Amino acid sequence: MEKTLWKHIQTVKNQSPLIHNITNYVVMNNTANALLAAGASPVMAHAKSEVKDMTGIAGALVINIGTLDEYWSEAMLIAAETAHSLNKPWVLDPVGAGATPYRDEILQKLLQYRPTVIRGNASEILALAQSHTAKTKGVDSTASSTDAVEAARKLVQHYESVVCISGETDVIIDNKQRLLYLKNGHAMMAKVTGLGCSASAIIGAFIAVIADKTEATAAAMALLGIAGALAAQQAAGPGSLQMQILDKLYNLEETEFDAQLKISRG
Amino acid sequence: MEKTLWKHIQTVKNQSPLIHNITNYVVMNNTANALLAAGASPVMAHAKSEVKDMTGIAGALVINIGTLDEYWSEAMLIAAETAHSLNKPWVLDPVGAGATPYRDEILQKLLQYRPTVIRGNASEILALAQSHTAKTKGVDSTASSTDAVEAARKLVQHYESVVCISGETDVIIDNKQRLLYLKNGHAMMAKVTGLGCSASAIIGAFIAVIADKTEATAAAMALLGIAGALAAQQAAGPGSLQMQILDKLYNLEETEFDAQLKISRG
Amino acid sequence: MEKTLWKHIQTVKNQSPLIHNITNYVVMNNTANALLAAGASPVMAHAKSEVKDMTGIAGALVINIGTLDEYWSEAMLIAAETAHSLNKPWVLDPVGAGATPYRDEILQKLLQYRPTVIRGNASEILALAQSHTAKTKGVDSTASSTDAVEAARKLVQHYESVVCISGETDVIIDNKQRLLYLKNGHAMMAKVTGLGCSASAIIGAFIAVIADKTEATAAAMALLGIAGALAAQQAAGPGSLQMQILDKLYNLEETEFDAQLKISRG
Repeated sequence: MEKTLWKHIQTVKNQSPLIHNITNYVVMNNTANALLAAGASPVMAHAKSEVKDMTGIAGALVINIGTLDEYWSEAMLIAAETAHSLNKPWVLDPVGAGATPYRDEILQKLLQYRPTVIRGNASEILALAQSHTAKTKGVDSTASSTDAVEAARKLVQHYESVVCISGETDVIIDNKQRLLYLKNGHAMMAKVTGLGCSASAIIGAFIAVIADKTEATAAAMALLGIAGALAAQQAAGPGSLQMQILDKLYNLEETEFDAQLKISRG
Repeated sequence: MEKTLWKHIQTVKNQSPLIHNITNYVVMNNTANALLAAGASPVMAHAKSEVKDMTGIAGALVINIGTLDEYWSEAMLIAAETAHSLNKPWVLDPVGAGATPYRDEILQKLLQYRPTVIRGNASEILALAQSHTAKTKGVDSTASSTDAVEAARKLVQHYESVVCISGETDVIIDNKQRLLYLKNGHAMMAKVTGLGCSASAIIGAFIAVIADKTEATAAAMALLGIAGALAAQQAAGPGSLQMQILDKLYNLEETEFDAQLKISRG
Repeated sequence: MEKTLWKHIQTVKNQSPLIHNITNYVVMNNTANALLAAGASPVMAHAKSEVKDMTGIAGALVINIGTLDEYWSEAMLIAAETAHSLNKPWVLDPVGAGATPYRDEILQKLLQYRPTVIRGNASEILALAQSHTAKTKGVDSTASSTDAVEAARKLVQHYESVVCISGETDVIIDNKQRLLYLKNGHAMMAKVTGLGCSASAIIGAFIAVIADKTEATAAAMALLGIAGALAAQQAAGPGSLQMQILDKLYNLEETEFDAQLKISRG
């Protein structure tokens, strides 16, 4: 699969898909920059008067509920419904699932439109599957990726989504019994806000142009994880890391990618 | 004009005008930082309860529709009307013009208040002038600056605005038959989100304190283009570039400016 | 007090409190990153449907009115009332107080819920205390910290808050007659947007876990001031400075802290 993943990274750069993001205020700048660095073309738009049109012209939609409110939730639902009805791929990032009843209510509504890919940390995936073992502290995870595998399977079965549980090990599960483990990345990445959100957006870019959504998800996670690991080697702290990840997303070489990739099948 | 442009840059630093921005979520941090680095004093405010007051105390207004919605559009219209009635200079940045009918509807309403300067990429200027050759893909341009010159002339005639079409070559057109070309900048700047938005905000700072709005626009575009070109010489990628442009806006020297400036008359 | 302040910094890192921020769009990314770098766990949430729940699970609340509007003001009032009724510590950052009547109206309502700490620049503290000498130009201060001491005393008396006037010298005043002066920081910090907002957020992290709110405020201001001073020694300009402050918040050593700390009692 290694050669295929690198090929997918080039496909995104060559096709530069337009990605429609309805995401949170904290990460909008970094998300747009991560998409540009990876070769995609980002647009952020949330007006109820235009989300349908914007999703219509985009290659994929990314919905991230990090700073949701009543207006934005309505816009997200319109966009998700549009993507679903147009058979356009879309990603759901359930930021802070389990933290408040309101988040969980909106997430259950969004799930009805069957996201192509769901990416969250272990606590969020547990909460999204309404597992009783879910423990959330704000938006950071207190559970490990492997804790959440059963919850992810439940989501895969109900919604036919590819589910990606990100963490020290990223786990990707689909409805064809595939199970992938990725061990790239670096511990300091948890000290930079919104790298999970960047991951979801980059997944959006990959599923826009790659037919196999599981491979697309793996390629996106590998790209960000490797960029993060290489950036962390040089970074003096999380400020530098945030900046250098963008540089690395932009100038990562095939030899670096091959040398770093840690992927295995479950 | 070269000596005059550098003098204008110093005037902004010395007078530090307050610039009222109603801009998009993606770029707010960078826009504020770009204004501070160039010596201006930024304020972001969009509440319908205060935009009239804020525009009233500001030296100039900058409206950028990047992440508009129904509420923000109303606030933008109040602010634009206020600027127009107080004869206060204002900039319109028509982000994503042509991407959705909603954007175009709001832009036509904003144009009624006759922006002092309009700055957009070629696709946006074409869409704003409702040229039938406009092609927009999200917020990135698919047309070249020279394609948009006729559309810009139409806007200059109808609204008496100075129009700046930014791109590999920046073109500035006014209603006194002046036509300026600027060839500063660097290709990697297109990989950093929102540098066009920074350009519009910096134009706001310059038109707040400089009487000749065409020269003010040229000085602002030259400053950002030269800062970008010098920053790109050192930048490892778009993350570094975003940061180093802010450094360069802050510490650019006259000798660097003189050596880099590429301006010509059409 | 020097040893105590460093101990407080370690307490935040060890306990990693969840901090609920209702803050402005300009600074959300940097605020979240500053909290992470200092060891806290940030969450940004403003939906009227969930602020009560979010404040309920957080260790402290931070309210910053930088880009307030009618909806956000209501959410802020709900959250402040929740914090007050749960006896949960909260910080008020009165960005742009005095700039418009609307800001002042909302601030007077927020004050009713007796913020644990108020942090602002001199102009903002003067305006908040409705001193007739207040002069505000947008969000930057035109007054000095010592000008605002009487205004701060008035706020301390009426609301029993700890008041921190930030500036070249930071002044901290409480209702036990304590008066502290901190002279860390660097002039270039005024050229980075939102470092005052970061200060307020970091104060939130410290008052969440430290019983003495005056010491907690001093520790937070010392941490950011020293991180800023050390970062400024290496920074080529405000872009680098913004990034390097995050690095320094993360990796500051006790010996550096001790060597830099400039604190005195009034």
